[in-house]
Amino acid sequence: MKSDIEIAQSAQMWNIGDVAKTIGIESDDLEFYGKYKAKISDELIERTKTRPDGKLILVTAINPTPAGEGKTTTSVGLGQAFGKLGKKAILALREPSLGPCFGIKGGAAGGGYAQVVPMEDLNLHFTGDFHAITSANNLLAALLDNHIQQGNELGIDPRQIVWKRCLDMNDRVLRNVVVGLGNKMDGMVREDHFVITVASEIMAILCLADDMDDLKKRLGRIIVAYNFEGKPVTAADLQAVGSMAALLKDAMKPNLIQTLEHTPALVHGGPFANIAHGCNSVRATKTALKLADYVITEAGFGADLGAEKFLDIKCQMAGLHPDAVVLVATIRALKYNGGVAKDALSEENLEALQKGIVNLEKHIENLQKYGVPVVVTLNSFVTDSAQETAFVENFCKERGCEFALSEVWEKGGEGGIALANKVLETLETKQSDYHPIYEKQMSLKEKIETIAREIYGAKDVSYSAAAEKELNRITELGMGDFPVCMAKTQYSLSDDPKKLGRPTGFTLNVREVYVSAGAGFVVAINGSIMTMPGLPKKPAAHGIDVSSDGVITGLF
Amino acid sequence: MKSDIEIAQSAQMWNIGDVAKTIGIESDDLEFYGKYKAKISDELIERTKTRPDGKLILVTAINPTPAGEGKTTTSVGLGQAFGKLGKKAILALREPSLGPCFGIKGGAAGGGYAQVVPMEDLNLHFTGDFHAITSANNLLAALLDNHIQQGNELGIDPRQIVWKRCLDMNDRVLRNVVVGLGNKMDGMVREDHFVITVASEIMAILCLADDMDDLKKRLGRIIVAYNFEGKPVTAADLQAVGSMAALLKDAMKPNLIQTLEHTPALVHGGPFANIAHGCNSVRATKTALKLADYVITEAGFGADLGAEKFLDIKCQMAGLHPDAVVLVATIRALKYNGGVAKDALSEENLEALQKGIVNLEKHIENLQKYGVPVVVTLNSFVTDSAQETAFVENFCKERGCEFALSEVWEKGGEGGIALANKVLETLETKQSDYHPIYEKQMSLKEKIETIAREIYGAKDVSYSAAAEKELNRITELGMGDFPVCMAKTQYSLSDDPKKLGRPTGFTLNVREVYVSAGAGFVVAINGSIMTMPGLPKKPAAHGIDVSSDGVITGLF
Repeated sequence: MKSDIEIAQSAQMWNIGDVAKTIGIESDDLEFYGKYKAKISDELIERTKTRPDGKLILVTAINPTPAGEGKTTTSVGLGQAFGKLGKKAILALREPSLGPCFGIKGGAAGGGYAQVVPMEDLNLHFTGDFHAITSANNLLAALLDNHIQQGNELGIDPRQIVWKRCLDMNDRVLRNVVVGLGNKMDGMVREDHFVITVASEIMAILCLADDMDDLKKRLGRIIVAYNFEGKPVTAADLQAVGSMAALLKDAMKPNLIQTLEHTPALVHGGPFANIAHGCNSVRATKTALKLADYVITEAGFGADLGAEKFLDIKCQMAGLHPDAVVLVATIRALKYNGGVAKDALSEENLEALQKGIVNLEKHIENLQKYGVPVVVTLNSFVTDSAQETAFVENFCKERGCEFALSEVWEKGGEGGIALANKVLETLETKQSDYHPIYEKQMSLKEKIETIAREIYGAKDVSYSAAAEKELNRITELGMGDFPVCMAKTQYSLSDDPKKLGRPTGFTLNVREVYVSAGAGFVVAINGSIMTMPGLPKKPAAHGIDVSSDGVITGLF
Repeated sequence: MKSDIEIAQSAQMWNIGDVAKTIGIESDDLEFYGKYKAKISDELIERTKTRPDGKLILVTAINPTPAGEGKTTTSVGLGQAFGKLGKKAILALREPSLGPCFGIKGGAAGGGYAQVVPMEDLNLHFTGDFHAITSANNLLAALLDNHIQQGNELGIDPRQIVWKRCLDMNDRVLRNVVVGLGNKMDGMVREDHFVITVASEIMAILCLADDMDDLKKRLGRIIVAYNFEGKPVTAADLQAVGSMAALLKDAMKPNLIQTLEHTPALVHGGPFANIAHGCNSVRATKTALKLADYVITEAGFGADLGAEKFLDIKCQMAGLHPDAVVLVATIRALKYNGGVAKDALSEENLEALQKGIVNLEKHIENLQKYGVPVVVTLNSFVTDSAQETAFVENFCKERGCEFALSEVWEKGGEGGIALANKVLETLETKQSDYHPIYEKQMSLKEKIETIAREIYGAKDVSYSAAAEKELNRITELGMGDFPVCMAKTQYSLSDDPKKLGRPTGFTLNVREVYVSAGAGFVVAINGSIMTMPGLPKKPAAHGIDVSSDGVITGLF
């Protein structure tokens, strides 16, 4: 059997200019990055703004397990299937982060015969957007420390610096560092931290900004520190806005690539959903809605994380109205949730499936709370038994959800036609009554507790003393009406990665809180989730190679 | 008067495909990055390898001063002038570093009417090569620390880690840091350091590697640490080679852009000349020699740094034979060397000129030691008096050098015709008898002392105890026959930036030594030069901006 990268490398890609033509984009509106990648122009985005919107379909999933769910695979396959049905569809996806490619998770181009290509480019540097974000993030940090070094006119309190450096790398030793050691010319000594680039507020800002002016406004509002009087110091105070914006100029333009079946895909921005808001850029989604009749987008990890933030943050801020949600599950993952070990998932086990399906049940209930019609799809494996599949199908129908099997991994678009038809039927027959789960005017604590109870199923919420204090400060600063971006493990509905299935009766522990004033949300860090991942004992990096003639192997 | 960026932005660039055609490169051999930048294919490089070489002309300068010398401006203008004369010429230049764009130095695209364009792209992310180097450098660091965290099978001594992290940013607080703080899962606590990306060994390796196989061999040889038995631990031991090479795959391809007059320019790689070897990539230079009759290349800062390393390291390793050297000076800079303050340089001052010209004299003598014919050029300013110019011209002729005035800043290629003619005349009438200043088999100390005495004019050399010890270790490891890459202030021929003119009787202080086993040279750090710059009190970043429609201002 071919590996994902082998399938991707043997693909007959179209010149991206030809892919663009299928959605009415001329070459003048493209900036080519090689033959198979392009950025789309600001002019195109402006010019198409008054067109009517296509339908917006969100793809999300149950909580991820080591068994694999295939959310991106399903999104890509669904896009390909729309193509097979002669429908005009575009994918709006996130760019993968470099760090995890060298760790456990790998890249994020889909899998099997449902991938976006060129896969290696996408998973490695792509068009440089994340590097631009890293540079802008670290320029701000350098300007901040330099301001202190050069006399500290703004009176920045070195104990209250909240801006962190970043790298797009899984590098645990950078979580907690001390900088500025050496002598007088080497800066002021202070504690500092690195986050992975996908967790940087700049990533969130890039993904939420409408245009260059909005980007600059948001960058200027970033709170980098507090002064000795406890007042916020912003990026604008540090005169950092123009140079950061210059670094981000090209990164603001959505990237166009294609699926294995030449479906256009706008791939732009990529905050993680466990430690950030988990959605591709607003610019990409909005533009996609103008260019096609059906836009398939995706939010990261399980529906408790990515979908919640898509529905409560992104759609609210950008004025988007999702028309349907596709919820991806696998029988293997449901059995894993039912307590089956990873190496025994291939055996039929209805009892475990019955036990584990509560995870799917909870996600269905959650998504229905938002008023958006839900289609459940099983990403099929050869090991799934007919009885198991029938059980899941029946389970979904009892809960008012449409159901379809997806075989896109093995068959590409052809394997997604059943799902695509079910989605089309849903769009035609069911009205989306989308609304967020909480109201803007609720207090920050009420918002956190609403998500914890309604979405996660928590009994209650506890706050560290520092989190309590910070919530008060943020409210006093007038930002109590911001939405809350929850940072939490992706592996459980709770904040404890070991609690599988549908945990109840637990307390959500809010460890740390900070405001992303530029992005426009408050981040609550729950449990022991880290904003800088580490590498495992056997990192994927060990298996990656390039041949003499430039062919990459071992990326997945 | 228009600023450099305004001139660059009003340029009528050709599509880079059309520029490529002028040197016989078809579109199939280009990977476009937008309309005005492209990478050239490995196939083109392979295919042209058997062609005869064009002439190789190095442009270097006197020691830089705050008055400005215009070495890149002269290189670019000379290339444009060759074009005016109907000659087939290519530039081979370094890519600018991002860090200094936000500090004092600014970018490096030339100036006035002698620039390479697109100027903003070049000075900011360009085609992402430096970001790829940063990523590869920091992946190696992450794999190293992860190896220790996961059990340290190789027995790496945390006190003897020599690999440093890097960022393309002027950020002094990262010079000396402590990483791995927190708890057990956050890694092992140790002292660490960041260098600027242009000082990373990966940058040197990329610039010296012939092809992918050579790149991988060199990456594998990098010494990252010593184990508890004092034996070297390499990147190959950490199984880091394939993934680093995958990150560098595209960065290995030279970039093609154009001058304001459409002269092709291969711009590739960019180690600083004060803290690294200061030359563009061997691949770019060698390919340029196959594609044109005249290749104008440049080495960083003054001839004591860039030219010395070009002649002793790059040409030796790559088997290059330079045919002529152009040495750039300005009357203002010579007067500054003669003790005139920056704000009084516009007044005629023959006495100061006479006093300061010793700096030029020393560089002429130095370059003549390498057996390469020298052409001195004055980058003219409106404030230069006829008497001053005549004095310099006469001074050069007395020393057996050709002389020409250059007015390329004001007039573009037209202003460089006198210089181009003088270079052509030199190539026709004078034979280059190029040879390095030291022999491979000399000891490392003998090499350092040869450079110190012959090039810098030092009386003697002192070594710190640590430097002595390291020189012994490197020799014992069998790398005593490596060339030496000197890291030293660019502002003086000595290691003290305040000693202008032609200092004598001084001792060169070798503070630190380490081996870049992958690059294949030993680095000697002299005086107080830093491998991570800082930002000034008023960083250039404060003046940079982007308009609503994406036009960048304030970059220089």
